Amino acid sequence: MNLDPLYSQLTLKTGAKLALVVLDGVGDIATKAQGEVTPLEAAHTPNLDALVAAGCAQGRMIPVAPGITPGSGPGHLALFGYDPLEYEVGRGVIEALGLGLELKAGDVAARANFCTLDKDGLVTDRRAGRIATDICEELCAKMAAKIKKVGDVEVIIKAGKEHRFVVLFRGKGLEGPITSTDPNREGLGLLTAKPVNAKSAAQKKTAKAIAEFYKLALPILASHPKANGFLMRGIAHQPEIPLFEERYLLKPAALAVYPMYKGLSQLVGMTKIEGPQTIAEQFQRYQQEYANYDFFFIHFKYTDKYGEDGNFEAKKKAVEEFDAALPILLEKKPDVLAITGDHSTPCAIKGHSWHPQPVLLHSAYSGSDKLERFTETGANLGSLGIFEAKYLIRLMQANAKMFDKFGA
Amino acid sequence: MNLDPLYSQLTLKTGAKLALVVLDGVGDIATKAQGEVTPLEAAHTPNLDALVAAGCAQGRMIPVAPGITPGSGPGHLALFGYDPLEYEVGRGVIEALGLGLELKAGDVAARANFCTLDKDGLVTDRRAGRIATDICEELCAKMAAKIKKVGDVEVIIKAGKEHRFVVLFRGKGLEGPITSTDPNREGLGLLTAKPVNAKSAAQKKTAKAIAEFYKLALPILASHPKANGFLMRGIAHQPEIPLFEERYLLKPAALAVYPMYKGLSQLVGMTKIEGPQTIAEQFQRYQQEYANYDFFFIHFKYTDKYGEDGNFEAKKKAVEEFDAALPILLEKKPDVLAITGDHSTPCAIKGHSWHPQPVLLHSAYSGSDKLERFTETGANLGSLGIFEAKYLIRLMQANAKMFDKFGA
Repeated sequence: MNLDPLYSQLTLKTGAKLALVVLDGVGDIATKAQGEVTPLEAAHTPNLDALVAAGCAQGRMIPVAPGITPGSGPGHLALFGYDPLEYEVGRGVIEALGLGLELKAGDVAARANFCTLDKDGLVTDRRAGRIATDICEELCAKMAAKIKKVGDVEVIIKAGKEHRFVVLFRGKGLEGPITSTDPNREGLGLLTAKPVNAKSAAQKKTAKAIAEFYKLALPILASHPKANGFLMRGIAHQPEIPLFEERYLLKPAALAVYPMYKGLSQLVGMTKIEGPQTIAEQFQRYQQEYANYDFFFIHFKYTDKYGEDGNFEAKKKAVEEFDAALPILLEKKPDVLAITGDHSTPCAIKGHSWHPQPVLLHSAYSGSDKLERFTETGANLGSLGIFEAKYLIRLMQANAKMFDKFGA
Repeated sequence: MNLDPLYSQLTLKTGAKLALVVLDGVGDIATKAQGEVTPLEAAHTPNLDALVAAGCAQGRMIPVAPGITPGSGPGHLALFGYDPLEYEVGRGVIEALGLGLELKAGDVAARANFCTLDKDGLVTDRRAGRIATDICEELCAKMAAKIKKVGDVEVIIKAGKEHRFVVLFRGKGLEGPITSTDPNREGLGLLTAKPVNAKSAAQKKTAKAIAEFYKLALPILASHPKANGFLMRGIAHQPEIPLFEERYLLKPAALAVYPMYKGLSQLVGMTKIEGPQTIAEQFQRYQQEYANYDFFFIHFKYTDKYGEDGNFEAKKKAVEEFDAALPILLEKKPDVLAITGDHSTPCAIKGHSWHPQPVLLHSAYSGSDKLERFTETGANLGSLGIFEAKYLIRLMQANAKMFDKFGA
């Protein structure tokens, strides 16, 4: 049952300030090999401990569904209160966001990568020997210089790491998804990108634009010894997502350092605040911008980064770096503060995982769970229980007294 | 997914006795200001403690949805096992129930209140200076004496407190919702009550009856210096709700003192047992009626009342009053006993809240969670976890062995 209309109908504007601090991938698991503690448990966190002692509610959140490991897209959409199964963000879009491209609703984005083709047009290396990033950049610049448009559709090309790049198609009446041009194994020719829904005029137009793009781009690459072709996958458009401000009656700002998270926040219409590089600088900027917004999304990447590396010590230190900066945030305490992750990134897994991430909620009305610290094990005992991450923002709104009573 | 057909299909009649004790608004939050304890935690509850020691399962219940604060209507419907989002009870209906009116399915009820009108019919005071209750009663009696029917529709008028009253329309083919006659600010004329669904013949008939009622009633009030008009809001009909007894195969009785809760129990077809005023008297009467019913809804108001007042000490004492009476109930122990609230009413909030209320379940099959007391913090650790309140009655039925096995 979609409860969004119910919440919308009950939402009041109160002027309260809400802050959501995302320690990306903070959740972890306690393995024997790492002394049966998690980085959050092992970290020295005097400031977080003091916050817990001041009265917090804790719990754990399921990012998408039991057992499902989310990417950053669904993980953050859920934190922003959008059902990640309802609002899917295509891989091409995510990739484009990750490269810092600003996407508009209706844009179609494709993940692309260079490959090599033989004289008959058959793929000989699907990754073009993982060419160096500077070669990729050079080839992308060459294509971008010559191809600005296909028909009335604007084309934006952006190089990524190694053989990877992104192509963005912008114009009226475009739509994904479009099938991939990747034959998925060597020895076969490039596939033709086709509308997934053959009846959609917008998908047909998009497929045609992609075919045009190939026609213009392949001759540019033809003479290159290492990368004379390219594959396109995950060709999807950026669907219209209801604006955060209209949905929650909260004016939102994003304090994120990495392009991906800036991009995700922009998908829902948050204002991107540029400048701060460290979590301490982000909290300082939060203080300065306090009066200008109602909702602050503050993103800290390093817990995830070191989780992905399987580096327990570094992940623990990242938590400590956050903890050391926390007093800056608390100097101008928001009415409602939530600290959590978008998912878990256990060191033992070296990647995102399905384990529900711990969450802490602090407000005048959060009550106290009488726990001593904010940890995975502690959060298991909290009053919030285990719940779907998409409800976190609703609990934050409740704590901000933003909901009228339901029924008499 | 609606599981009601599944439950119905598996329901067996066992002759077990079930009792649901509702400590209205009992749930609370532990704030620093109140010594980081809740009234339930602070109260001296030797009898409840002994019950817990005898073996109970505990948990917490979400009355409607995460973050949503329910009124008494949705709160109780959920406890009676009806999805409060599926079975909405209109405000007019709740108000009528609160004044002790007995509602039948199809009745349309309106919250009304006296106002003052100037010579041009414009509203000069939307609350008629909050006239004294005896004036309200006098005016209602005057209208009731002269208006018994409008067309073939019976009219029932009942005075409330100060300027408030309720009008009930009873007859064939009536239906709400109907738009309000309240212009929402002074200086404007009364609005015409209109069908919300213009195609509904029943709503049209109801709107016409309301217009007729105004035509007859306004002249009766015309000469009154303080209250020569009235506004009608929340005009809704009492929808058909499946009967409790048919739904659960349990013959239900309600032991409630306040009209609102008697009314809510009647909406689902419980038999109202009149007489007892204190919780001890309610439990005594339960003993006497033990053989006559299978399900007892026993409602205790004061935990909510003092929560609304923000009176921690009084709320704590209300819990102790209940605890002192509990042995009377336990002298004739039901096969399944649930003790909970319809929602939380934290003293720090002085009103209903969204915090999941604690629940205790005791039966030969409840098992023991090995907790020492029944408290919010303890309930966080219980075997029932956090669940939607509408499932409580299903857990009670399960503990009464009222469900056949599903599948082989």
